[in-house]
Amino acid sequence: MSAIDELVGELSRLPGIGRKTAVRLTYHLLKRPPEEIQRLARTIAHVGERVHACQTCGNLSDLDPCVYCTSPRRDRSLICVVEEASDIGAIERAGCYAGLYHVLGGRLSPLEGVGPDELNIGRLLRRLENGAEVVEVIVATNPSVEGEATALYLQRLIQPLGARVTRLARGLPVGGDLEYTDGVTIAEALAGRREIRS
Amino acid sequence: MSAIDELVGELSRLPGIGRKTAVRLTYHLLKRPPEEIQRLARTIAHVGERVHACQTCGNLSDLDPCVYCTSPRRDRSLICVVEEASDIGAIERAGCYAGLYHVLGGRLSPLEGVGPDELNIGRLLRRLENGAEVVEVIVATNPSVEGEATALYLQRLIQPLGARVTRLARGLPVGGDLEYTDGVTIAEALAGRREIRS
Repeated sequence: MSAIDELVGELSRLPGIGRKTAVRLTYHLLKRPPEEIQRLARTIAHVGERVHACQTCGNLSDLDPCVYCTSPRRDRSLICVVEEASDIGAIERAGCYAGLYHVLGGRLSPLEGVGPDELNIGRLLRRLENGAEVVEVIVATNPSVEGEATALYLQRLIQPLGARVTRLARGLPVGGDLEYTDGVTIAEALAGRREIRS
Repeated sequence: MSAIDELVGELSRLPGIGRKTAVRLTYHLLKRPPEEIQRLARTIAHVGERVHACQTCGNLSDLDPCVYCTSPRRDRSLICVVEEASDIGAIERAGCYAGLYHVLGGRLSPLEGVGPDELNIGRLLRRLENGAEVVEVIVATNPSVEGEATALYLQRLIQPLGARVTRLARGLPVGGDLEYTDGVTIAEALAGRREIRS
């Protein structure tokens, strides 16, 4: 197989990249200076070699423990539990959370064979047992059926350890459109309605 | 900068890949086995090291001369001229052309500062001068204003050398819809109409 066909094949395996996009990307790379192609290759190799799950929270990082776990500026009384390491970026971008994180590595999904043992839950419980300083655990799993089930499961395990367990609010997304919002979300938004205070 | 941020940055530079897709691809890779990440890195590095323009036709390949130039099964009386090496794949997929190729590396575009000297035209003329066997040059530049201008320019250079110069037919794309076809294409399809023979 030619080097071009090999790269088209490799790129086609990535999510959201079909054969046509893979061909376009390959020929795009071939028009760039050779240093740029080698830099991309090196950066991918580095990510593969250097990035590992943080032993404390499960975040993917080239540091272990990761920046959140070691930062003296993070509030150690809060742990935000997310499904995937990539969710941390979304929360950080919101710019209003300064506590710690814990990455589950997925959510409970009996249909896909994901039970509690497949998730990074034991280490979360140990963090809570050891660290009496944790006051609240914010469960930020996705607002899906599996995410809800995972949150409920965690709540039952965590509550006896003394920490408050909270869940992200559900409701209308900012910039959304009532007309195009599904009924379940509207029901949640109604149930969670808040008084307007002037 | 962390290894993850670096890869997100590199991937965002690729065409059609925004920041969100770059983040998704990066975390996708991190979920794959390490060998798979290294294989992708290696394949990209190989393409950068091994793929060069064929000295004869300008096709991008890890062989020089490329497979089309050396194949004993290709018809050496035909040369199909394309703008980019990636166009060859499109024609090969059609499966009904078995001649040689010549890659211009672009099209004439005075606005973008691309004149005849920027294109791989000199070598095409030398191929025609040396190879008395070439009977027809099919100019398969894109059906755009620049592609047309390039075809006309080539026709004037090539005709004196004795080869026939042809152009791909314009008309309705197969599977297209008359209602949604632009007027220029319909005009071309009318002008190029063919008698139905039973």
